[in-house]
Amino acid sequence: MALLVQKYGGTSVGSIECIEKVAEKIKATRDAGNDVIIVVSAMSGETNRLIELSRQVCENPDPRELDVLLSTGEQVATALLSMALEKLGCPAISYTGSQARILTDSAHNKARIKDIDGARLRKDINAGRVVVVAGFQGVDEHGNITTLGRGGSDTTAVALAAALHAEECQIYTDVDGVYTTDPRVVPEARRLDRITFDEMLEMASLGSRVLQIRSVEFAGKYNIPLRVLSSFEEGEGTLITLEDDGMEQAIISGIAFNRDEAKLTILGVPDQPGVASKILGPIADGNVEVDMIVQNIAEDSSTDFTFTVHRNDYDRALIILRKVADELGAREVAGDNKIIKISLVGVGMRSHAGIASTMFRTLADEGINIRMISTSEIKISVVVDEKYLELGVRALHEAFELERPLDS
Amino acid sequence: MALLVQKYGGTSVGSIECIEKVAEKIKATRDAGNDVIIVVSAMSGETNRLIELSRQVCENPDPRELDVLLSTGEQVATALLSMALEKLGCPAISYTGSQARILTDSAHNKARIKDIDGARLRKDINAGRVVVVAGFQGVDEHGNITTLGRGGSDTTAVALAAALHAEECQIYTDVDGVYTTDPRVVPEARRLDRITFDEMLEMASLGSRVLQIRSVEFAGKYNIPLRVLSSFEEGEGTLITLEDDGMEQAIISGIAFNRDEAKLTILGVPDQPGVASKILGPIADGNVEVDMIVQNIAEDSSTDFTFTVHRNDYDRALIILRKVADELGAREVAGDNKIIKISLVGVGMRSHAGIASTMFRTLADEGINIRMISTSEIKISVVVDEKYLELGVRALHEAFELERPLDS
Repeated sequence: MALLVQKYGGTSVGSIECIEKVAEKIKATRDAGNDVIIVVSAMSGETNRLIELSRQVCENPDPRELDVLLSTGEQVATALLSMALEKLGCPAISYTGSQARILTDSAHNKARIKDIDGARLRKDINAGRVVVVAGFQGVDEHGNITTLGRGGSDTTAVALAAALHAEECQIYTDVDGVYTTDPRVVPEARRLDRITFDEMLEMASLGSRVLQIRSVEFAGKYNIPLRVLSSFEEGEGTLITLEDDGMEQAIISGIAFNRDEAKLTILGVPDQPGVASKILGPIADGNVEVDMIVQNIAEDSSTDFTFTVHRNDYDRALIILRKVADELGAREVAGDNKIIKISLVGVGMRSHAGIASTMFRTLADEGINIRMISTSEIKISVVVDEKYLELGVRALHEAFELERPLDS
Repeated sequence: MALLVQKYGGTSVGSIECIEKVAEKIKATRDAGNDVIIVVSAMSGETNRLIELSRQVCENPDPRELDVLLSTGEQVATALLSMALEKLGCPAISYTGSQARILTDSAHNKARIKDIDGARLRKDINAGRVVVVAGFQGVDEHGNITTLGRGGSDTTAVALAAALHAEECQIYTDVDGVYTTDPRVVPEARRLDRITFDEMLEMASLGSRVLQIRSVEFAGKYNIPLRVLSSFEEGEGTLITLEDDGMEQAIISGIAFNRDEAKLTILGVPDQPGVASKILGPIADGNVEVDMIVQNIAEDSSTDFTFTVHRNDYDRALIILRKVADELGAREVAGDNKIIKISLVGVGMRSHAGIASTMFRTLADEGINIRMISTSEIKISVVVDEKYLELGVRALHEAFELERPLDS
């Protein structure tokens, strides 16, 4: 008997009708002889409704209280889904993050899971119950309710799958798998049957909205096969696993992009050891996550230092950076929040030369100026002006023939 | 420095605007030098919205899951109120029932508080924080979320006041005190300045909607002065305390009534020892609460046994009683759910004769037939046909001159 963890997103439980359909799906999985742990998000719209309520009170609500508020969304969904399962004669029991002993750190609104004590869940599973756990939330060591940040329900699902040694973690969502790129930008985009954790990680972190990045990290770390499926259509979805010989060997798996980028540059910093940490330390202390980093030595042996952050953090980062510039005696601080990032992702890059030059030439042919470049073993990212997003992605999708199915 | 517990009901926190007003009230109380524990209900309408959601899933949802669902209502209110307090520069921290260690039994939907471990709350109060606790909810020994049933927030407030030795428990609501009777029925009804726990208990249990009966029991048991006040108007409200010499000595304090009554009679039960428990045992086992009980011995030495239950429990009680009747060889079971109960309440009854006869004569003068009578030291209750409610209450209010303020 296999243990499966299934996660249903907000649109999958967006109405009572949807919840009832999900309950039937779960019952079928259970009737087929599987044990099931379900993770649910809040009903679609609910989290935004709650955020709106808090905004009516104040612009920047206390993070602890925001977590208390937001965590109710998933709690409601677990109760309703459990009721729907019971109604179908399928014994079920709901758990809040706290009840499921999903222990996190105390970083409210973006907490990280430290440990899960699965003993109580295991007992209910052994008693034949479907366990329905509220995603996105946990509890810190002081008993405070925490949330994992948007998309955190995926992470909950994978963490539970790891803690309870599930066979597969299935993420049900409103798309039927992972695509070579966003089909809204490139209609020819193709669903991938399989993709590696590493590739998915790059896809997810670069803005592909299908899965939350931390959930893929978790899954890779504990080698939990992760499957993305549609709640509304039948199909095999996309399986995310370790790389293996039987896996389709595309050079490029997909093209990710991220609209939420902003770029900051500190110009003319006296070049001295430790300057990077003097710049990025205060940024990190300000709870701003940095993505790409590029450093150039200028001719006068001063340094220009550029990095990108989430667009929401741009104003905050700019204030911090100006202070840092004063302290370091830097010449100037510049910023641009009208940029985006496009990335080619593929494990095949390792064994194929010339990917980068094809990428740069393709963009140049379209007259797109590259503002930053960053590479890793399995990806190449470029920052370009916001207006070039669609043009750039389409050109690259065509250049690398991603619309063509692989021979299998 | 006095410790006050203040409870705000659903209409008091019914909108963000109301929540902000409540926050100002609380800040003023704190600025006046008091420590404050706040208990809040769900925003008005929210509990009904959640019940409606559950009803869309199934008519009789699992009681445990219903508690998981409903408890989110208060949780939302605690978070929003804490945010509003913080915004006013008043340090605040929210608690769910579980976090506040409000330990209850496991009777979902109508749990009873067994114990409160106030240590953590005390720590926050000592740190200068306003503690905002979700009313109506607790946690059982297995960590399951429980709710105390409608109106349970009052009970939460009084239980916290008792556990933390508060000076006074103030119940803020949408009325400005306890009245001689419901002003919607008798416009001349008068607000009482003071009333005893015992009187309030009779008023509450008999249908006066101002306070939840268990909260008054609790308050009386631990001698916590209880004050009912309006959230929206200034005023002293009504103070509920132990009887003392300085208390206004009305003969009758008020007239309570209860529309939610139903009456069941088992006729021709062979009279034998223990017959009452044989009848009421199965009723209690069916979780039906019995209110009035009347037993007559008929001429053939068989017994007629009548009792009243909440109208919602009527159908269930009838089914149980028919089974009991078969087993006991009773002649017949009869029932009526179109009855109501009217009660005169007053500690002064103890020292004044003739109250009952005045009551019965007043009703007789209006042509109202009395179907059941039940008395205690400080109340006389009659059951009459539903249609006589307003007529009966008005006639009694006038007969006992309750509209006249007492000389003080």
